[in-house]
Amino acid sequence: MTQQGTLGVAVIGTGRMGADHVRRLDRVISGARVAAVVDIDGDRAKRAAGGIDGCTAYTDAAAALSAPDVDAVLIASPAPAHEATLLEAFARDLPVLCEKPLTPDAASALRVVEAEARLGHRRVQVGFMRRYDPEYLRLKALLDGGGIGRPLMLHCRHRNAATPPGFTEQMMINDSVVHEIDATRWLLGQEIAAVTVLKPARSSAAPEGLGDPQLVLLETSGGALADVEIFVNCGFGYQVQCEAVGERGSARIGDAHGLLVNTAGRWGGEIPQDFVERFRTAYDEQVQRWVTATREGRTEGPTAWDGYAAAAACEAGTRAQASGARERVMLAERPRLYG
Amino acid sequence: MTQQGTLGVAVIGTGRMGADHVRRLDRVISGARVAAVVDIDGDRAKRAAGGIDGCTAYTDAAAALSAPDVDAVLIASPAPAHEATLLEAFARDLPVLCEKPLTPDAASALRVVEAEARLGHRRVQVGFMRRYDPEYLRLKALLDGGGIGRPLMLHCRHRNAATPPGFTEQMMINDSVVHEIDATRWLLGQEIAAVTVLKPARSSAAPEGLGDPQLVLLETSGGALADVEIFVNCGFGYQVQCEAVGERGSARIGDAHGLLVNTAGRWGGEIPQDFVERFRTAYDEQVQRWVTATREGRTEGPTAWDGYAAAAACEAGTRAQASGARERVMLAERPRLYG
Amino acid sequence: MTQQGTLGVAVIGTGRMGADHVRRLDRVISGARVAAVVDIDGDRAKRAAGGIDGCTAYTDAAAALSAPDVDAVLIASPAPAHEATLLEAFARDLPVLCEKPLTPDAASALRVVEAEARLGHRRVQVGFMRRYDPEYLRLKALLDGGGIGRPLMLHCRHRNAATPPGFTEQMMINDSVVHEIDATRWLLGQEIAAVTVLKPARSSAAPEGLGDPQLVLLETSGGALADVEIFVNCGFGYQVQCEAVGERGSARIGDAHGLLVNTAGRWGGEIPQDFVERFRTAYDEQVQRWVTATREGRTEGPTAWDGYAAAAACEAGTRAQASGARERVMLAERPRLYG
Amino acid sequence: MTQQGTLGVAVIGTGRMGADHVRRLDRVISGARVAAVVDIDGDRAKRAAGGIDGCTAYTDAAAALSAPDVDAVLIASPAPAHEATLLEAFARDLPVLCEKPLTPDAASALRVVEAEARLGHRRVQVGFMRRYDPEYLRLKALLDGGGIGRPLMLHCRHRNAATPPGFTEQMMINDSVVHEIDATRWLLGQEIAAVTVLKPARSSAAPEGLGDPQLVLLETSGGALADVEIFVNCGFGYQVQCEAVGERGSARIGDAHGLLVNTAGRWGGEIPQDFVERFRTAYDEQVQRWVTATREGRTEGPTAWDGYAAAAACEAGTRAQASGARERVMLAERPRLYG
Repeated sequence: MTQQGTLGVAVIGTGRMGADHVRRLDRVISGARVAAVVDIDGDRAKRAAGGIDGCTAYTDAAAALSAPDVDAVLIASPAPAHEATLLEAFARDLPVLCEKPLTPDAASALRVVEAEARLGHRRVQVGFMRRYDPEYLRLKALLDGGGIGRPLMLHCRHRNAATPPGFTEQMMINDSVVHEIDATRWLLGQEIAAVTVLKPARSSAAPEGLGDPQLVLLETSGGALADVEIFVNCGFGYQVQCEAVGERGSARIGDAHGLLVNTAGRWGGEIPQDFVERFRTAYDEQVQRWVTATREGRTEGPTAWDGYAAAAACEAGTRAQASGARERVMLAERPRLYG
Repeated sequence: MTQQGTLGVAVIGTGRMGADHVRRLDRVISGARVAAVVDIDGDRAKRAAGGIDGCTAYTDAAAALSAPDVDAVLIASPAPAHEATLLEAFARDLPVLCEKPLTPDAASALRVVEAEARLGHRRVQVGFMRRYDPEYLRLKALLDGGGIGRPLMLHCRHRNAATPPGFTEQMMINDSVVHEIDATRWLLGQEIAAVTVLKPARSSAAPEGLGDPQLVLLETSGGALADVEIFVNCGFGYQVQCEAVGERGSARIGDAHGLLVNTAGRWGGEIPQDFVERFRTAYDEQVQRWVTATREGRTEGPTAWDGYAAAAACEAGTRAQASGARERVMLAERPRLYG
Repeated sequence: MTQQGTLGVAVIGTGRMGADHVRRLDRVISGARVAAVVDIDGDRAKRAAGGIDGCTAYTDAAAALSAPDVDAVLIASPAPAHEATLLEAFARDLPVLCEKPLTPDAASALRVVEAEARLGHRRVQVGFMRRYDPEYLRLKALLDGGGIGRPLMLHCRHRNAATPPGFTEQMMINDSVVHEIDATRWLLGQEIAAVTVLKPARSSAAPEGLGDPQLVLLETSGGALADVEIFVNCGFGYQVQCEAVGERGSARIGDAHGLLVNTAGRWGGEIPQDFVERFRTAYDEQVQRWVTATREGRTEGPTAWDGYAAAAACEAGTRAQASGARERVMLAERPRLYG
Repeated sequence: MTQQGTLGVAVIGTGRMGADHVRRLDRVISGARVAAVVDIDGDRAKRAAGGIDGCTAYTDAAAALSAPDVDAVLIASPAPAHEATLLEAFARDLPVLCEKPLTPDAASALRVVEAEARLGHRRVQVGFMRRYDPEYLRLKALLDGGGIGRPLMLHCRHRNAATPPGFTEQMMINDSVVHEIDATRWLLGQEIAAVTVLKPARSSAAPEGLGDPQLVLLETSGGALADVEIFVNCGFGYQVQCEAVGERGSARIGDAHGLLVNTAGRWGGEIPQDFVERFRTAYDEQVQRWVTATREGRTEGPTAWDGYAAAAACEAGTRAQASGARERVMLAERPRLYG
């Protein structure tokens, strides 16, 4: 693969995230084209492929991965389908960008880790897109540069305006807090060692049966402590904030208020309603960086191990939701591939 | 006591806080004068009285309280001396503004509560000055007005640049977090029901033996949850922040940045180094409100019960520091005097 | 006059500002009492004096100034009445706090300056209360300390929600921009040398005949330039901002946002509707400082010369409104009394 | 030209801006490739073309424009060379993205306008990249949506840390304020009618002979007024701010402070030192939008007329710098092509 060749990507899954990645690869990203789209709903696959020159619709991922013009795979199918596609990609030694979660649980994630370790080189980048957000990147650079000394605590807020039907407490951990789990691991360069969940009085705006909000406490292998407010029916918008507290200072992101308006007795501005708006740049940058690295024959970004470690911490988190107690995270030994 | 008469105040204790109250009563507050100052160090008492017309220096609080020109008492002596002076004041039915803590522990605070209850009317205002801070008052008004719905969580930060020699972990609760304990009770109108303390890795900037910072979790009788970062050697200044999270919104104080400066590649401003600067208005307002109410024959503000309940929560907090477990707060029955 | 004696103050004029000063002296300020109130409306004077122990109501300022318990004078009557009261006070050598403007025009203000110069010592403090606002004081300290280098420009915003009936374009200069005129002179330590006024399209929210907003350009004797947006029907509240631009940095005040609220898709907070709320501390501090200085036998703060120089700049400003051209400010020679 | 074909772009000029556009087209932009680079310095052209598959280096723009794989032209050569290349492009009916200024003066810009008008359809997009900045776009949307009522004034700040050698006062208008001139025209949908320049005392940090800072006043055809602080040796960084004042509110951009850091007695963050950092997204978006529109057969964005009108306003601005007086902007009649 040379820098000059355009990367032919197969997009697996054409739901909300998949369709957005198709659009992104087709119209935003440099150096890539959508060579194939796969959906078990053949009509939906055809609609996604329509209007894209040289794009073929498939209902079977394996068939798409075998196509000669497919150089790489972007997995955006439902989580239970990820493992099979990942193993197919390994069999063909194809580079993969896999939407988070890597797989639905730690056991299957560990199988993927072991398979990639057997392959002997990295092929998977996991879609923890916050690592490509300009604000997170500035915070990471500050921490790595020692600007506030050794980090001791993180204070995190993760708020959604409202949940869709069927949203469960487990999803608060697996779909939402998983981002803070990965961000904590990445910002601090430490594993999550234990998780505790506290549940204050339930918001009357939360659906019946959903204990919302919650406070999730993450203890790391290096002794740092992250507290995460997860509030998925906060009512006012989508908001992600993170304050790092170090030995010599603190630093906060998530208050970027680009447009300040004074009207009718109020100063302020609008809160985005959606993660798409808040993290648009991060999603674009994540895929661009993956395409560029892939064209240059490299794999970088969040690893399969990151996907596995996040899954293990999420499992401790959902246990902690149920037990009310502090739950330890048990990790397998880290293969040498992941440094 | 009529509105028109100037209130003659005896100030007990002329250390840092006491001397500042003498200055405040003499030069800032309307309607009061310093009639007496008391310090067991007679020379220090004389120095404090010097230059104030009609002010007498005493070494004995009881003698000062008996003076005919003393209408009210401001207690700023070390905590162990508070109880005796409070009981003396009750014996003479004198109004008291008592610096926090009311007394050093819950048992003695309960004795004061019971003594005042026997008196049958309130005489004590406890010096939880944050209740007079303009920002806290605006937050309280917002919560009481339902502006963000029922409050569910508080996120609190309490940071000091550095500790003086001899500062202990217990003092992190009793001298520092006690303010968040009172603020939580006051903002939410609920008692503290349980306390848990988590200790991340110790800052290398903290003195030997001091586990700094800590995260203190306060659960209230109404099911709300407050997390308090206490970091008394943060290095960069004095900073108090509070974010309330309600069913329909959130609200934050502590970021008021009056002067924004751009210089040499940086935007920003100065952080106060001291609680005196941050809460100057609150201290002035607290004493002015006490003087005005006293002249009008009323007692208002934080009660002896507030002092007792804070002491009980602090005791649970120091137990939680030692045990690492969740510690329940046990409260006596609240006398009818305190509503 | 010793520090210990309580200052007996005669308040001249009991309209909105006068009544507020009566309340302030009676209930907020240390070391002063309202000994007399004066209003040509005798009933209003009596109402203002009611409930204040030892306060006498007068309809004649001269009579009040002759009362033996009057030690000092606070003038809050309509501007045309100021000159006579000031001269009466000079005749009795009484200290005066005179609400701005000193007098209605530069000629009469110069007569006051000359009369005080003949007296040979300062007796007048003029009520430019912004000099006592904590934010302006911090900006002044920054400039004086060289924190942003030599100041070259000021960008000022002065906005009122709406004008009362009868508000004229001249009042935009004389009642509103006069504060920026004084602030510019004080912050920079320079006189205003010329004024130009530009009028953009009139807001349809402004009353018929009022050219609102306007941009007022002040050139100083030292070559600095201040631009002032004056918008007295901005609709959304009361807002005063000032950015100083120096050779090495810039600094801005007026954005202090103490309480940040997230609700219903919006972040932000409330804008005060009134100068009383925005400058409450400044008014209190102004009067307290005047009382304290007066009790110590000193006169400080804005001088009669400051009142005159502001009046001269205002006259140039109203000429500039009419002419559309740059109008020079002509100042008399400054008496040695004013340094 | 179909959506599917990759756009072959000839980049004219490989200086700082040109080289950055080559990188952008090669690595950031979707749907385009660099087919040709042109520089009169043949070695520099070859270096720019190196490593890009299928990219040919030229020293002659006309030759490049004749190449069969060149579908569109991006002009980033020195301004005096623009007109000839634009006319060449018109002769071949090639779409052009032309870096600002369109040409060095209004007369030559008008010739380009007339040539495009004769062509009968738009072929030129001018590189006023602020129109693609997310903050400016939000401000524009707010104004267009009537969120603050009819706009009456703009307050603009445009600051550079320091000027390179040879920077002249005319360049303060032609290279810097030209952005505010275009932004004012675009935000308000009005022409600039007159320009006045005021010069405060010169900063001692400015190079000998450069009157820096200056205040530029722009009056529009609709009666709005924009004041622009231009300060090209402000010392502290690159800063662009704009506040729009409307009949019912105001709105400000340029304060987006993504990362807030507390350290060593200071809160705040870093100021970018360079327009590349501040407007990176705008540059990317500008070129992506041009590529996408061109592939779809459309021309959009800032027009040749916008380039001409800005040039005419700049000429009035430099006249105003010299005369100290208000200078009117004289515009030719607008061809029907530009609506």
